[in-house]
Amino acid sequence: MADALVSEGFSARMMAAIGRTGPLCAGIDPSASLLDAWGLSDDVAGIREFGARCVDAFAGVVPVVKPQVAFFERFGSAGIAALETLIKDARDAGLLVIADAKRGDIGSTMEAYASTWLDPRSPLVADAVTAMPYLGIGSLQPMFDLAAAHGRGVIVVVRSSNPEGRALQEALTESGGGPSVQDMLLAQIAELNAGGLPLPGTAGAVVGATLVPSAFPLGSLGGPILAPGVGAQGATASDVAHLFRGCGPGSVLASASRSVLAAGPDLTSLRAAALASRDQMALALG
Amino acid sequence: MADALVSEGFSARMMAAIGRTGPLCAGIDPSASLLDAWGLSDDVAGIREFGARCVDAFAGVVPVVKPQVAFFERFGSAGIAALETLIKDARDAGLLVIADAKRGDIGSTMEAYASTWLDPRSPLVADAVTAMPYLGIGSLQPMFDLAAAHGRGVIVVVRSSNPEGRALQEALTESGGGPSVQDMLLAQIAELNAGGLPLPGTAGAVVGATLVPSAFPLGSLGGPILAPGVGAQGATASDVAHLFRGCGPGSVLASASRSVLAAGPDLTSLRAAALASRDQMALALG
Repeated sequence: MADALVSEGFSARMMAAIGRTGPLCAGIDPSASLLDAWGLSDDVAGIREFGARCVDAFAGVVPVVKPQVAFFERFGSAGIAALETLIKDARDAGLLVIADAKRGDIGSTMEAYASTWLDPRSPLVADAVTAMPYLGIGSLQPMFDLAAAHGRGVIVVVRSSNPEGRALQEALTESGGGPSVQDMLLAQIAELNAGGLPLPGTAGAVVGATLVPSAFPLGSLGGPILAPGVGAQGATASDVAHLFRGCGPGSVLASASRSVLAAGPDLTSLRAAALASRDQMALALG
Repeated sequence: MADALVSEGFSARMMAAIGRTGPLCAGIDPSASLLDAWGLSDDVAGIREFGARCVDAFAGVVPVVKPQVAFFERFGSAGIAALETLIKDARDAGLLVIADAKRGDIGSTMEAYASTWLDPRSPLVADAVTAMPYLGIGSLQPMFDLAAAHGRGVIVVVRSSNPEGRALQEALTESGGGPSVQDMLLAQIAELNAGGLPLPGTAGAVVGATLVPSAFPLGSLGGPILAPGVGAQGATASDVAHLFRGCGPGSVLASASRSVLAAGPDLTSLRAAALASRDQMALALG
């Protein structure tokens, strides 16, 4: 099964899936407040039911789901077991799964995180995983390598949608004369996709939809862009259209979590909210 | 039980423990290669046995252990269950536990990570957890708040010991005129400890022992410093002495993983390696 995926790679699979069902990634965030709003208990049974309803509502409607690992991890091993079930069920239902884990480390530790989320033998294997670049893009190399080997993706958090991240992400490299941190990382990701990795499109970036454009031309990234901030965080379709003009069709995946999940627990309402958000983003992204 | 810890806080407990058994944090890194070197299987039974031997060897010898979460997470829920056992056994044996998770996110997701590692009701509750600042120190606030409420610690990865992290961590903030990213973060952590949090010493920093000093005076951090890079990564006792001169007694915890663990699986050898490394660091740190 791994080999079949390798011939395509995550980026190509994401593009094909977006071509079928539009450019929306639906977050699966079983927070205490959303469980309460859905009439579910704030425990492992609650997050299992929450995840199952999300898979039912989103399969065939959006191309990708993004479980937020923290909301499962907070229940320890029992929560992680629920996440294993959710990832498997979502993939079996034809959804691509991005594990929103934001992992980052160095050396053999980074190899271990890579195998957790990207090795087909792992109970937590997803189609792609988000990663943190604070230790440098080079520190994530074991994850890029394993992703390329198994036709999966690594989506690096580069430009976050929260205001607290701006000072760090806009700091200037090379002792103040070089590109900003975020533009340096985007250029490094583009290099990986342009030949640094055996499978182009393996490396992607998180670029918040709430931001103004930075210097790096996002159309040259050569890998998937995940754009959080749509809906509850305030980004509109026109913000998305403006920020990502120049990016090819199927290369940008707008991500909505609370704004869609707030329509639950009713499956019909949840599905309708996902469809509306997806169609709005399809118009914006052309 | 939580209340008893709150009256002291993590920093005070760490200082007291260092006063008793010296300034060494022993990493617990059941990587595939160390399991093999110890004659253990690369599976959940192997990591359980590895962890149990580490607790046996290190209790009473070093003040703090630092399980590397990735090496447990790679086995999914079963691996996390082994980590739950390890953390509980280590704390029951009188060791302080820093969960090396390097988590980072925003908003309710950050709250979920905070509760995973710092809420006394969580099966994974530790004495402190490591955190990633790429989304800004402000994004970690829910973790600082929960740590302060429960007498626990948050140790922010600020200056990593790997070369790939230098360009990002040395980038200059405020459009190239301000302090470097790493010095900005150190100053922000010092502010939290100087009054931004109800319990001073709640916020700490990871500062690689392999580095040259930066502009920020580490003696003013007001919280614990975790210094990886000792041993296998190349930092010597004299590097440590140079980098951390000016830091008060008990405020710096040198961290060694592979260099100590390589002495296993024999308990006597493992204990002797930890003792030797601990005594060397005690001399270096005064």
